[in-house]
Order: sequence, then structure tokens, then C-alpha cells
Amino acid sequence: MSNQTNTVMEELKQRILKKGRAKAEGGVVLVGSFLNHQMDAQLMMHCAEEFARIFKDQGINKIVTIEASGIAPAIMTGYLMNLPVVFVKKKQPKTVEESWKSWVWSFTRDGETTVCIDRNFLTENDRILFLDDFLADGHASGSIIHLCRQSGAQIVGMGFLVEKGFAGGGQFLRDHNIPYYALATITRINEDNSIELA
Amino acid sequence: MSNQTNTVMEELKQRILKKGRAKAEGGVVLVGSFLNHQMDAQLMMHCAEEFARIFKDQGINKIVTIEASGIAPAIMTGYLMNLPVVFVKKKQPKTVEESWKSWVWSFTRDGETTVCIDRNFLTENDRILFLDDFLADGHASGSIIHLCRQSGAQIVGMGFLVEKGFAGGGQFLRDHNIPYYALATITRINEDNSIELA
Repeated sequence: MSNQTNTVMEELKQRILKKGRAKAEGGVVLVGSFLNHQMDAQLMMHCAEEFARIFKDQGINKIVTIEASGIAPAIMTGYLMNLPVVFVKKKQPKTVEESWKSWVWSFTRDGETTVCIDRNFLTENDRILFLDDFLADGHASGSIIHLCRQSGAQIVGMGFLVEKGFAGGGQFLRDHNIPYYALATITRINEDNSIELA
Repeated sequence: MSNQTNTVMEELKQRILKKGRAKAEGGVVLVGSFLNHQMDAQLMMHCAEEFARIFKDQGINKIVTIEASGIAPAIMTGYLMNLPVVFVKKKQPKTVEESWKSWVWSFTRDGETTVCIDRNFLTENDRILFLDDFLADGHASGSIIHLCRQSGAQIVGMGFLVEKGFAGGGQFLRDHNIPYYALATITRINEDNSIELA
């Protein structure tokens, strides 16, 4: 692992420890002050640089994310890797005609949502990198696997800003033989609501 | 207007003419192949460079957008202007506690949605630039005006990738004395569904 990697990961980890808030009950992690509501654009670019470095030379031709919090890291990584970025939409907007569909359980909204992607933008010719802000239970990743199976697109890898290491998403992806990389991994939320990182 | 401006605007306009699709009935403009579903990250950065140039030196301290299609141009402009970017969320996620709320009519979903922003991220100390992909009827802009009124934040300006010049949003913003800039303006969709640009 290069020094550059260590620097980016350290910057993100320190921010999570200083500015993140957590609730042991429910395993809630709040990073909305810098990552997924209000966003530090410089930090986001540093994370994108890291994704671009990790996933280069793997024949990826497209970056896929899911609205809304994945879009910022995805568009910046797409810019650096010179790749198109497509975001999976929630619900079925009437501007999307022929689409692949799946469903995702939203932790932050306590409900299931239909997700879709235009069939023209996910095809059997695509070798994709999926990027998102959080890997938790793997529900969003599961919907991407489902969409890619329908379209014939191949998932080369997945990248996450933060993994909830205590949730089941990592095991879910390993069970599906999907290589993934998380820039920071929260291993535990203590009873005093403090955060422990890997 | 500089040559640089003309180049960016010309790039976006040519893309709209070549890759955009429109339906005269309902005034629908589809730019999902490069702008708001699948996104050309290089084009998006060029648009962000243009926003950064237009809105520099105006004392802006924060960029505000609304999920989902506004996030890509906003995060890139935030990066270039070295400003935080906050996106207004649709519905009320349980991760957002104390929020300012408004409502927006979604053209692409044929329904009204609650939108909200954490009170910590929009305050009377903020001088904001609102960025979005489309200015159409001005419904999203209206919700931003409403959120800013509640919080005391000042709207310095608004920027849009594309304006539907035949819709009411431009007049709405002029009526509210809000300076705005659109990188491309669609003046008319002809009966044969061809697009005319300003």
C-alpha cells in the first residue's frame, strides 16, 4: 500500500472520528456534515483519486452508482478515469423508458424502493465499477448485481467510502465473489456511541 | 463573453442537438445519455469550470443543490471553487434530524415530494449558489427560495446546465430578483420534435 493511499485513508478516518456521529442502537452512522448531505468537495476528490488508483488497468468502461449519495464520488472518479458515469434512479421516472428494474431497501427511509436504469446504459458490453458512499447490509449492492444480471453487464469491482464492518454487506459481496474496496471501515460502535475504525 | 465561455456553451449545445431527444407534447427534453442519467464526466467538469468562472468573487460560501441530477455539477463546481456542497434531500430521511422543509413538484415523477435540509447546513450566515441540471417551471428553485427564507440564508445566484426557455422558470426567478445563468437555453421544441437553442 502506497503512502498516498495511507494519506487519503487517514484523512477520511480522522474526519469520521472527529465529525462523524454514531448511535449504537440501530448501528447508525451520521457523516452528513462532510460526506453525504453536506460534502467536503476536496475530501471527495481525494477519495476519487484513491478509487481511480485502485481500479485502474482493470478494463472498466463505465462507473455505476445509485442516487443520491453515490453520485459525488462517482462523477469525480469518472472524471479522473475518463469514463462515463451512470446513476441508478429510484422509482421509475417517466423520462426513463425501457429500463432494467430492481428493488432496494432503504435504511434511511425505512422502506423498499424500485430502482431502475435505462437499458441503453447498462449492456452486456459493460465492465462496470460500482461506487457508493456506504456498504452496510449490501442492499444497494444486491440491486446492482440484479440489474447487471438482467443486462449481462459484468461487475469488475465495487468501491465504498465507508463500510459498516459490523453489518453483513462485506460477507454478502464475498459470497458473490465481488472484489470490493472500502476507504474506511467502521468495525464497531461502542455503547457510549464512539466509533472504532479498522 | 470570453472565448472559453463560448467553447463550453458550444460543446454543451452541440451535444444537446446531437444526443438530446425531445417531445413537443409535454415539452419533454431527454438528455439522459450524457447529462442526467448517464453523465459525461468531462463535459460536466467543463460546465463546472464555467460556473466557477461566472460566480467567482461574489462572496459565495456554499453551493446548494437538490438530489439527484444537480449533485454532479455541484460537487465539481464546489471542488473548483473550494466550497462545501450541500444537497437538499427528497423525503425526510431518518438520518436528518432538525431540518428546514419544503415541497417540490416533480415533473419526471408526476408528484409532489417533501424536500429537506439539515438546519446546521443552511443558516443565516450562508451566501449560497444554487446549481441544478434543469430550470423548467422553477419548482425546485422555488423550494430553495422557501428553504433559504426559513433559514435566513441569502441566495447570491443560481446556475443551470439547461434552461427550458419556453417554461416559466426564468420569469419566476426574475420576479424574485434572483440572478441566474443557464449554460444552454432551449427556446422551442418544434412539432417534428427537433430542438431549437438560443
